[in-house]
Amino acid sequence: MHDHDQHLVNLALAVARHELTTVKPLRSPASAATIYGALAGSISAAGIGAEEAVELMRDVVGANCMNVSNPNVYAFIPSAATPASLAADVMIASMNMIGDWWLEGAGGIAAENIALAWLCREVGLGDHAGGVFVSGATPGNLSALAAARRWWRSEHREHTRDRLTIACAQQAHSSVRMVASVLDCDVLLVDGDEFGRLRAHDLAVALAAHRAQGGAPVFAISATAGTTNLGMVDDLAGLADVAEQEGLWLHADGAYGGAAVLTVTGREALAGIDRVQSMVVDPHKWLFAGYDCCALLYRDVRIARAAFTQTAEYLEAVEVSADQWNPSDYAVHLTRRARGVPFWFSLAAHGTDAYRDAVDSCLATARAFTAAVQAASHLELFAPTTLSIVTFTRPGWARDDYQRWSDQHLADGEFFIAVSEFRGHPLLRVCLVHPHTTPADLQQVIDSLV
Amino acid sequence: MHDHDQHLVNLALAVARHELTTVKPLRSPASAATIYGALAGSISAAGIGAEEAVELMRDVVGANCMNVSNPNVYAFIPSAATPASLAADVMIASMNMIGDWWLEGAGGIAAENIALAWLCREVGLGDHAGGVFVSGATPGNLSALAAARRWWRSEHREHTRDRLTIACAQQAHSSVRMVASVLDCDVLLVDGDEFGRLRAHDLAVALAAHRAQGGAPVFAISATAGTTNLGMVDDLAGLADVAEQEGLWLHADGAYGGAAVLTVTGREALAGIDRVQSMVVDPHKWLFAGYDCCALLYRDVRIARAAFTQTAEYLEAVEVSADQWNPSDYAVHLTRRARGVPFWFSLAAHGTDAYRDAVDSCLATARAFTAAVQAASHLELFAPTTLSIVTFTRPGWARDDYQRWSDQHLADGEFFIAVSEFRGHPLLRVCLVHPHTTPADLQQVIDSLV
Repeated sequence: MHDHDQHLVNLALAVARHELTTVKPLRSPASAATIYGALAGSISAAGIGAEEAVELMRDVVGANCMNVSNPNVYAFIPSAATPASLAADVMIASMNMIGDWWLEGAGGIAAENIALAWLCREVGLGDHAGGVFVSGATPGNLSALAAARRWWRSEHREHTRDRLTIACAQQAHSSVRMVASVLDCDVLLVDGDEFGRLRAHDLAVALAAHRAQGGAPVFAISATAGTTNLGMVDDLAGLADVAEQEGLWLHADGAYGGAAVLTVTGREALAGIDRVQSMVVDPHKWLFAGYDCCALLYRDVRIARAAFTQTAEYLEAVEVSADQWNPSDYAVHLTRRARGVPFWFSLAAHGTDAYRDAVDSCLATARAFTAAVQAASHLELFAPTTLSIVTFTRPGWARDDYQRWSDQHLADGEFFIAVSEFRGHPLLRVCLVHPHTTPADLQQVIDSLV
Repeated sequence: MHDHDQHLVNLALAVARHELTTVKPLRSPASAATIYGALAGSISAAGIGAEEAVELMRDVVGANCMNVSNPNVYAFIPSAATPASLAADVMIASMNMIGDWWLEGAGGIAAENIALAWLCREVGLGDHAGGVFVSGATPGNLSALAAARRWWRSEHREHTRDRLTIACAQQAHSSVRMVASVLDCDVLLVDGDEFGRLRAHDLAVALAAHRAQGGAPVFAISATAGTTNLGMVDDLAGLADVAEQEGLWLHADGAYGGAAVLTVTGREALAGIDRVQSMVVDPHKWLFAGYDCCALLYRDVRIARAAFTQTAEYLEAVEVSADQWNPSDYAVHLTRRARGVPFWFSLAAHGTDAYRDAVDSCLATARAFTAAVQAASHLELFAPTTLSIVTFTRPGWARDDYQRWSDQHLADGEFFIAVSEFRGHPLLRVCLVHPHTTPADLQQVIDSLV
């Protein structure tokens, strides 16, 4: 089975060619019984052979996955991968490219580092910045906060074995709470403003109360730069002030919203982002790469190295040199594919201007759609549009009405909008990350709600 | 940049076709300065275009990554991905297939679950077993031990916020110590036998001493089924007895060695593996899939679901049903590509007999090579060969001699064997996971050491 098989390769590349050159329609999965039925018997003693396996791959496996890169998917923060990034991932896959140690993956690691350095410069993280691509924001947040705890304890050696606390807003992504549980930390949940944004004053008051009550010491603030639900940005500049005053680590979850840093208006919304100690931004969300690719950035990458290098606990007193750059040393992973290379490739091929334009175009589309929602007498804007998420309601509808409407339009292959809620209010939520989403697409959404 | 570009796709698929149909030679990376120099300017405002980007991808990025699937890579536990698994990964990449929630990735998730169910059956984990593919054994071990802690605390509610301890052998993989640090756990390191194997009696004594000294309570034993260094297997059956007596979770890191469960002789070496609560085995190691793919298996997958479901803390009182199967609920991740599908595809195409034969053939090659080392008057076997790792020394050589020899043969593109050490003794370590490694290849290794 390790022999090369031209026929198998021809079949697989035909599937890949089709996928890379067509816009696939929206589709919902068949029932579980149907899918498992179609795949029954696929694992057998003798094997089903290349032809049948490729058929199952195309007609069952692929056909029952949603095409999340379709420009009419607005739910769950979709993907808008460029064909170039997917083509690069195809090349990576064919090469079985590993990206853990320099000795084995130097070429891919160098390309990743060039893309990371560009992101660090765009954010403004300074001369010791660097990072690593991880599989998603959850392991990114986990790694950043694990490094943060180690750093904080090095400054507070009396707390080396004590339970500690992470402060964040109620509206922080669910992953922060899960990550805190894995880290065995408490979470200090702070009420945000009317749209859930964490404000510096509220945080300072909460920190003082926590301390007065004898809570486990806080070591980090986990801020959000673009909440998943309403697309809101915490008061990053104010939180940076608090972090400085209290000696805390400021981490920003910019999984979705961090990409806006490339544009002038996005930069304003993210004011203060250049003062974080760490952040995540997912190229597989709004930076046009395929799954799974999260950029984890550190202001001082040497702190991460000290936390995660598996072979040596000590921190070398020298700068991290390129020929010792092992991505395994900067997050909770070890073996990894060179998952940042497709992002580098697409960015290289298309250029940074195209990236800025694409992000800007989504912001402009969101503003235009916001105006259209406000102009529609049957709809009400729910929250102000900060980035490219637009939330609104149809007065008179309950959650079930929204859900039926959403299910129907997904089933019809028109568009996919998830029903969400905020503090008990059901709402519709449109997340715009695909530059090919048209005003006509969005007018269709508005019209369908009459 | 989101338009489809036939020319770009043609260029990328030509690279993929070449990669999927040729055995590439071993190669070492150029210097960091050379690689970064060649990639300088790749990120520009206007973009370098498809042709130049594909050239950089092929001639710089790809050419400076080691071909770890070459049958003459014996170091670091290499890869032996089948062309079928890489071709499937090419298809996955072209589809931008997501694998986090059933609604979006049903087809891929169903295929993954069929492969996981087969692995669970092979191990013998029982009726409630299940799992998820994660990116590697480090996040797999982290997730298993996080679930373990949650389970143990549910049985010992007086310790809900207390620091706890993981017990493992000195020879456990470095990732266990890093994972413990992220989990904020202590590690009880137990001396193994002469080759580092953790024995039940030694563990029981260490646990009693730890308790007598008032150490943080132990909740889990992290055993190793195939150490990275010598390929040794802890006394899994004995450890399972201790775990039962003490009410502990038994986890097995079978990242490398777990694959041996497919064969009769491997099964003997892994006696007791069917009694673990959780284990990892990496298809990207000895199950012939590309990077990055680790199967994380739980005896009772509902415990994992309770630990990682990000939206609900409670455990539903019903069986996990296929149409609610969200892989994001079973480990520390959320967004993920359908990384197990290439393993399923290759297994489906070739059949389970071919997999058993391929693993068995590596075991047979290891036994034959062991005999050849023993017969060579200039070499000495270091440790008994348990699985497919063979360790030996050349009496008279110091670490520097081994390193020069290793570097030279890698530079010449002949083979790659890493220099290792055990308790201060330098040694050579040959890890055999590619069924195409020939007796002649290995004779070349022996001859080169005269």
